[in-house]
Amino acid sequence: MNPPRSLEQRRADTLRRLAHDEDAWVATADAAGTPYLVPLSFLWDGETLLISTVATSPTARNLRAGGRVRLAAGPTRDVVLIQGTAGPVEDLTAELGDAFAAKTGFDPRTLRDYEYFRIRPQRIQAWREANELPGRDLMIEGEWRA
Amino acid sequence: MNPPRSLEQRRADTLRRLAHDEDAWVATADAAGTPYLVPLSFLWDGETLLISTVATSPTARNLRAGGRVRLAAGPTRDVVLIQGTAGPVEDLTAELGDAFAAKTGFDPRTLRDYEYFRIRPQRIQAWREANELPGRDLMIEGEWRA
Repeated sequence: MNPPRSLEQRRADTLRRLAHDEDAWVATADAAGTPYLVPLSFLWDGETLLISTVATSPTARNLRAGGRVRLAAGPTRDVVLIQGTAGPVEDLTAELGDAFAAKTGFDPRTLRDYEYFRIRPQRIQAWREANELPGRDLMIEGEWRA
Repeated sequence: MNPPRSLEQRRADTLRRLAHDEDAWVATADAAGTPYLVPLSFLWDGETLLISTVATSPTARNLRAGGRVRLAAGPTRDVVLIQGTAGPVEDLTAELGDAFAAKTGFDPRTLRDYEYFRIRPQRIQAWREANELPGRDLMIEGEWRA
């Protein structure tokens, strides 16, 4: 097991992963407490994640209704875990739509019944092995730890 | 993109992954619809998955209260997705405890306040790329498709 990374290193690794990874695991739930989980492509803009899925999917229904999401990027032994709030994107610019298509390789604007959602992280955690569980909080209540 | 795998091939690949993978993403939710997601080690016995986590964790609380779980193994482009029901294991045998410790590398019997849960799949899906979305259902209502 490698020695635990510093806060600065974890933050740099996390930002690199958010900029370059193609997909994340997106967990949502309905009002009755039924969990849902699917992999979705995302675009990170430095502060929020943009995703898109079929408007009739459980993920889209759950995000419209409750707006709470938990999202994981990376493999299970190099985790970036994000807890956040999400809502439909009403004001997608052409520039943002183009950037999403270029990053993810699919363009929901050309597909029927797709909807965009913006995820705003409230908490971000990152760890690799058990020795990195202490200090895994990188963002709390929307603020990066210094 | 490779041609889509047959049902038989997906089932073989899925069973191999369940037998050999160390961790899975485990999604649960509380009664208010708050999603939770963490990576956990698991042991597959051919019909159910055994996991263990701290009794006070959100995952343990959600599984005790609602018992509904959605679990993903594999990377986002080689997905095994399981929807199932879970409950606490009241009758852990020494043999099963030993097998869990041997597979996962940690033995919850030696740790404070850990609880075992057994997950029984109701639905299993497997796909790699978009061309494998048709035919992704391997198990429906607890029965493997023939």
